[in-house]
Amino acid sequence: MAASTFPLKDELDIVIPTIRNLDFLEMWRPFFQPYHLIIVQDGDPSKVVKVPDGFDYELYNRNDINKILGPKASCISFKDSACRCFGYMVSKKKYIFTIDDDCFVAKDPTGKDIDALRQHINNLLHPSTPYFFNTLYDPFSDGADFVRGYPFSLREGVPTAVSHGLWLNIPDYDAPTQLVKPRERNTRYVDAVMTIPKGILFPMCGMNLAFDRTLIGPAMYFGLMGDGQPIGRYDDMWAGWCVKVICDHLGFGIKTGLPYIWHSKASNPFVNLKKEYKGIFWQEEMIPFFQDAILPKECTTVQSCYKELAKQVKDKLGKIDPYFVKLADAMVTWIDAWDELNPPAKAANGK
Amino acid sequence: MAASTFPLKDELDIVIPTIRNLDFLEMWRPFFQPYHLIIVQDGDPSKVVKVPDGFDYELYNRNDINKILGPKASCISFKDSACRCFGYMVSKKKYIFTIDDDCFVAKDPTGKDIDALRQHINNLLHPSTPYFFNTLYDPFSDGADFVRGYPFSLREGVPTAVSHGLWLNIPDYDAPTQLVKPRERNTRYVDAVMTIPKGILFPMCGMNLAFDRTLIGPAMYFGLMGDGQPIGRYDDMWAGWCVKVICDHLGFGIKTGLPYIWHSKASNPFVNLKKEYKGIFWQEEMIPFFQDAILPKECTTVQSCYKELAKQVKDKLGKIDPYFVKLADAMVTWIDAWDELNPPAKAANGK
Repeated sequence: MAASTFPLKDELDIVIPTIRNLDFLEMWRPFFQPYHLIIVQDGDPSKVVKVPDGFDYELYNRNDINKILGPKASCISFKDSACRCFGYMVSKKKYIFTIDDDCFVAKDPTGKDIDALRQHINNLLHPSTPYFFNTLYDPFSDGADFVRGYPFSLREGVPTAVSHGLWLNIPDYDAPTQLVKPRERNTRYVDAVMTIPKGILFPMCGMNLAFDRTLIGPAMYFGLMGDGQPIGRYDDMWAGWCVKVICDHLGFGIKTGLPYIWHSKASNPFVNLKKEYKGIFWQEEMIPFFQDAILPKECTTVQSCYKELAKQVKDKLGKIDPYFVKLADAMVTWIDAWDELNPPAKAANGK
Repeated sequence: MAASTFPLKDELDIVIPTIRNLDFLEMWRPFFQPYHLIIVQDGDPSKVVKVPDGFDYELYNRNDINKILGPKASCISFKDSACRCFGYMVSKKKYIFTIDDDCFVAKDPTGKDIDALRQHINNLLHPSTPYFFNTLYDPFSDGADFVRGYPFSLREGVPTAVSHGLWLNIPDYDAPTQLVKPRERNTRYVDAVMTIPKGILFPMCGMNLAFDRTLIGPAMYFGLMGDGQPIGRYDDMWAGWCVKVICDHLGFGIKTGLPYIWHSKASNPFVNLKKEYKGIFWQEEMIPFFQDAILPKECTTVQSCYKELAKQVKDKLGKIDPYFVKLADAMVTWIDAWDELNPPAKAANGK
């Protein structure tokens, strides 16, 4: 951790799932152009997705995914932005930043453009503090520190695995809330970064998210959503719950807060309700499952934690619906595919 | 909870510990004058503390405390602002706001004076959400809500027992941090209120604090500090750790964040180091003690929880130093004194 500083040009990939021309990159040009992009094209592979000139990128469509993963491609969702996790798998970099193509550069309260990537990297390069709450938020922010009463033995913190950024304008609401509050916009700029405490779950949104793939990459699986699946819009949530349980077990931290992006448009609440419908019921059982999940001490790698979690998903959530049995199998397939593309000997292991 | 709204004039007391004339009240006049003040005069009782004209107050000095509590007055600290908790005990109101006499009205980023009391009341009148983290902070704030992925069954929340406010200008640092960063000032206005999650401890500062005394009052004991005691500056911390364990057990919430006050001057770091010295060591054992403390199901009132905690303090922390045996006894005395002044039949019990 110590040696790395911004801008980490050779250590970070930007992963973008999309079905359309990437005009939104024009606004991000000053911030993203120095980095390599991994574009995961969803839907019809014969469609051509245009990328503005001057960006360094590789693009994968469904045919590419099928060719690279063979039968294991079944674990990558189709017709859903959950397909983005394929990009995490083919990256060879230490850090990933993933962003939706309807997210634009936000402005801070002084009117200045926010360099979201810089803030994410800053979050990832500084420790997290999951074991005790600091009332002045991230003690590693400029002008902040640990307050009186914070135990000194806990001030070293733990490595930060995930940086979860937020959204101005259109908040990330579920369909029922969208239907009830169609005009609500997020205008509150909260100037804070904080660690999600140990043992507490959070709703991880994939819209504006960065992570250290050498620490937690194999757990960043966005599940089975979209075409042929009974639910959607739980891809990032599922990943977040798995990631949180594993980070808590392995002693890694997750931060949320800054940076903000500008989320330009609300998705259709009626379409969303259809996608979320079963998830709204199922999450009432998924949350207690993840709250109570215990990983055995023998699980010392992300892969072994994740396979153990898959086993528990099959055993405990499989009773709710056969979907969870299929999902548990896909979780195992995902790890196998990850290890195939990232052979343990060659993969960076962060140590 | 439903019937109460701002300004709660007949339901709130402001408790101020002091050793000097209360000139600082002039700045607070527009906000505090409608309320009743309970002033707890520390130190030499023969000294006269002047209160600006127009305020409605009662004032207690050490002679008054000794007269009212008799032998039980031993549980109230002398020559330390921990004496403020006597004010919580003699109040008959539902809510308490306590503030230090070196705290002034802060300004929000638009330059407007912050009505700290109003924000505290707002925090206390809306539920807390300790079981799951909401990434857009307090879902009950204007313009905010629960985000996608927040379980619907947890959206009702739990009653809020404590509202912990923050400080602009001089941050609440311990002596070592004060010594290392003598010029650090808190200039970051974080526009957020949040629930401290269940199972996580935090450093509760008594400088700018409000609570519902019908829910948690008997646990708001600021311990034995100051004259004749081996430590100081752990009064509010001690109260906060006890309160958090009991709130988690009874299903009450604690919020932190807004409102800010302007903390005008740093206390002397050398004097503070002397007061904190033993606490810096002891807190390394106190924190694991509180993290692991379990209250039995039979403890269904704050008083029974607190007496059980006193027992555990004596058993487990008593080994560190005889001070904790004395403190555990004082905790029991405090509850006895509380119940004497607030007979269960007459005391509001929040139900």
